[in-house]
Amino acid sequence: MKTGDKGKTVATEAKVERRDFLKKAGAGSAAVAATAAAASSFPKPALSQGAMKWRMQTTWPKNFPGLGTGANTLAEFIGKASGGKLTVEVFGGGEIVPAFETMDAVASGTLEMGHGAPYYWKGKVAASQFIASIPFGLNVAEQNAWLQFGGGQELADKVYGELGCKFFASGNTGVQAGGWFNKEINSLEDYKGLKMRIPGLGGEVVKAAGGNVVNLPGGEIPPALASGAIDATEWVGPYNDLAFGLYKSAKFYYYPGWHEPATLLDNFISLKAWESLDSELQAVVATANAYANLFVLNEFIANNNQSLDTLVNQHGVTLKKFPDEVLTGLGGLAGQVIGDLASQDPLSKEVLESIVKFRGQAIGYAKVSEEAFYTARRLPFTWVQL
Amino acid sequence: MKTGDKGKTVATEAKVERRDFLKKAGAGSAAVAATAAAASSFPKPALSQGAMKWRMQTTWPKNFPGLGTGANTLAEFIGKASGGKLTVEVFGGGEIVPAFETMDAVASGTLEMGHGAPYYWKGKVAASQFIASIPFGLNVAEQNAWLQFGGGQELADKVYGELGCKFFASGNTGVQAGGWFNKEINSLEDYKGLKMRIPGLGGEVVKAAGGNVVNLPGGEIPPALASGAIDATEWVGPYNDLAFGLYKSAKFYYYPGWHEPATLLDNFISLKAWESLDSELQAVVATANAYANLFVLNEFIANNNQSLDTLVNQHGVTLKKFPDEVLTGLGGLAGQVIGDLASQDPLSKEVLESIVKFRGQAIGYAKVSEEAFYTARRLPFTWVQL
Repeated sequence: MKTGDKGKTVATEAKVERRDFLKKAGAGSAAVAATAAAASSFPKPALSQGAMKWRMQTTWPKNFPGLGTGANTLAEFIGKASGGKLTVEVFGGGEIVPAFETMDAVASGTLEMGHGAPYYWKGKVAASQFIASIPFGLNVAEQNAWLQFGGGQELADKVYGELGCKFFASGNTGVQAGGWFNKEINSLEDYKGLKMRIPGLGGEVVKAAGGNVVNLPGGEIPPALASGAIDATEWVGPYNDLAFGLYKSAKFYYYPGWHEPATLLDNFISLKAWESLDSELQAVVATANAYANLFVLNEFIANNNQSLDTLVNQHGVTLKKFPDEVLTGLGGLAGQVIGDLASQDPLSKEVLESIVKFRGQAIGYAKVSEEAFYTARRLPFTWVQL
Repeated sequence: MKTGDKGKTVATEAKVERRDFLKKAGAGSAAVAATAAAASSFPKPALSQGAMKWRMQTTWPKNFPGLGTGANTLAEFIGKASGGKLTVEVFGGGEIVPAFETMDAVASGTLEMGHGAPYYWKGKVAASQFIASIPFGLNVAEQNAWLQFGGGQELADKVYGELGCKFFASGNTGVQAGGWFNKEINSLEDYKGLKMRIPGLGGEVVKAAGGNVVNLPGGEIPPALASGAIDATEWVGPYNDLAFGLYKSAKFYYYPGWHEPATLLDNFISLKAWESLDSELQAVVATANAYANLFVLNEFIANNNQSLDTLVNQHGVTLKKFPDEVLTGLGGLAGQVIGDLASQDPLSKEVLESIVKFRGQAIGYAKVSEEAFYTARRLPFTWVQL
């Protein structure tokens, strides 16, 4: 998925709206336009007063599970930890400006803060898509380590600096699911002509494999899957996929989500607003983002655990692993597609070089640590019985 | 390892001291006792003034890589984010009281804060060892999710409440290494009579497998391994193990660290001091701990990646995986040992029941998400070339 798609995935599938958060045009409904027009006449809060009031618009609907709730948590802890010296009011996508104009509104100073996902801004700065998640790239733990100890924060600040913003990692979905398929994938050949809804870099890889990649507003995905208009779609992971009801329209749930191994949520702050903060409030914002970063991942892990159990044991979903031959083929295609994209832009190349270096060592360590532990833990022994 | 052992592992192996941070008695040297005596006459800072000054003692030496630096980060961000309203001075283990009396000093109000590892306090409250890391239990991402969304924080606060303290997770080493061996482990039988230094729950499991478990001060481990006085030892992971020079005395470096899959560092705060904070400062402390929690893990991952590369490619270390048969046997023994321990104490049982439930669903999800992604990523394809 692109996380913005999840604009459609509300907590109960009955409430799926038709408005698409991925399609920029989709946010331009009359109601939204009216709100946006009204927004420009809102009085701007003074930054120099004792108590500052900031506005943050998210690219997702307000209170959206895992994403909107992460933004709420960020705002809540900024307010609490600053003792009210800086309060952040949260607006859902489209409440002040159209969702995908959030970055423009922050860059221009209409808003102080935004909350979204880095690849939304690739049309403005191509390198931002490499700050997000990269097919077969880093997982979430490695991505966080890269940001803090591998030069990633400095590079992300450079990328977001081009947009007039300060960058913070402010949540992560962890590795996503491979997607919902009505056709089996037994070899790379099976991608030829496969009609799949898969955006972003993952979509480019599927295209390179011969797939017929389509983009659909979230609300149109379940009927398209049910009617056979598309053969497959990816979305997020068990937590959001269960709520979206995709299991009703697809035969197989494939894993792993090679295309988005660690989808990062960004908190971007107008540089002017950021620089107006004293060192105390800058530290509050940094720590509140660390809190939100962990909080969102925790929420996804806890709920993915439960939701997968529900999908398999209550809804009889069939889990399937992409065959190694297929993953090997997709991995090679990903390398080409991503390398080609990055070589067109110096800043993208600089970011990707840093990630390639970090990933080289991370793969060796992961194999003998987390991966080996996961495998050992599910060997056929009886653990604690109480 | 027990993280306190790492009191000995300094950044360069040349500086390994003889004092053992694990053995409680070991901290009672004349110098430490003198310091402790002097500490009781330190003026206590007033809690009600505008600017509060707290003291935090760690169980490890000051600035110790990954552990001491995590405590420093916590203190730094509390000071910054509170704008100096609450500053925390950091003392290394033994600087005010002996390292393993840090909890007593916090409970009694001599110190406001401590930084250590939960299993250090199992002699006071048995359940604390289950808040730490459990053989074949949760990994770090799951442990964080359990704390925030699985009832773990409430249970940890209950356990630490028995000690008169508030609990925060304040760092994590991630999964540790399996250890350094001079004998091959090809079957569970090979543990019979194996002289191994492995403390805690892991040690109990090795004992149940017939091992001859010994405890040694950190500084005595390398010569004991070199002379054959012990056959094997575990320590932490590549980052600390490289610094400690263990590769010089052992033939094989085994993985995975089934015995400590996610060693948690605790920040414990005297309840009286905690309750004296207003909601602003409580939020500052909570978010600074989230920052430290991520920071420590990031530091371990980034440095473990690099250090494993150095161990293998510069020092020619031979990595070996414990055979599945061995891991299966150890897993079953772990289940028995841990279940027996927990059934002796209602609070331990309550904590462990919650973890068992969370782990049951986590295993299913991990298999199709992180584990499958790790495996997919190291298939034989060429990724990005720049």
